Amino acid sequence: MHARVLVRPKAGILDPQGAAAERALAALGFAGVGDVRIGRLIELEVTDPATLPQMCERLLANPLIEEYEILDG
Amino acid sequence: MHARVLVRPKAGILDPQGAAAERALAALGFAGVGDVRIGRLIELEVTDPATLPQMCERLLANPLIEEYEILDG
Repeated sequence: MHARVLVRPKAGILDPQGAAAERALAALGFAGVGDVRIGRLIELEVTDPATLPQMCERLLANPLIEEYEILDG
Repeated sequence: MHARVLVRPKAGILDPQGAAAERALAALGFAGVGDVRIGRLIELEVTDPATLPQMCERLLANPLIEEYEILDG
């Protein structure tokens, strides 16, 4: 099956990439944009989706500073 | 409103990061994993969601090599 994993910086963890994107959007004239956070999207085909949390803990995310969310399909 | 943007390499574009993750998962003993692709997740608060496609075209994605998908909520 196809799976998507979203990995994002935990709340409270600095996200300089998101802050830079937010400033750049404002500089381009986009108003009303805030709280920009940048993380990773991992898409994969997996035969046993039950192993996904373990993959996230061991490789795909850094549990110290990131949280992950597994989406089907 | 809260919005999520998923940015991924277009089909046919090499994704060395995804290939490395795929090899690493196999090396860790995860079987049945394939077609790993790694992209970006951008989460933001935006007052006018109609401007999101333009933000993607101009800053958040590189339309030459990446495609984007806008998710609500």
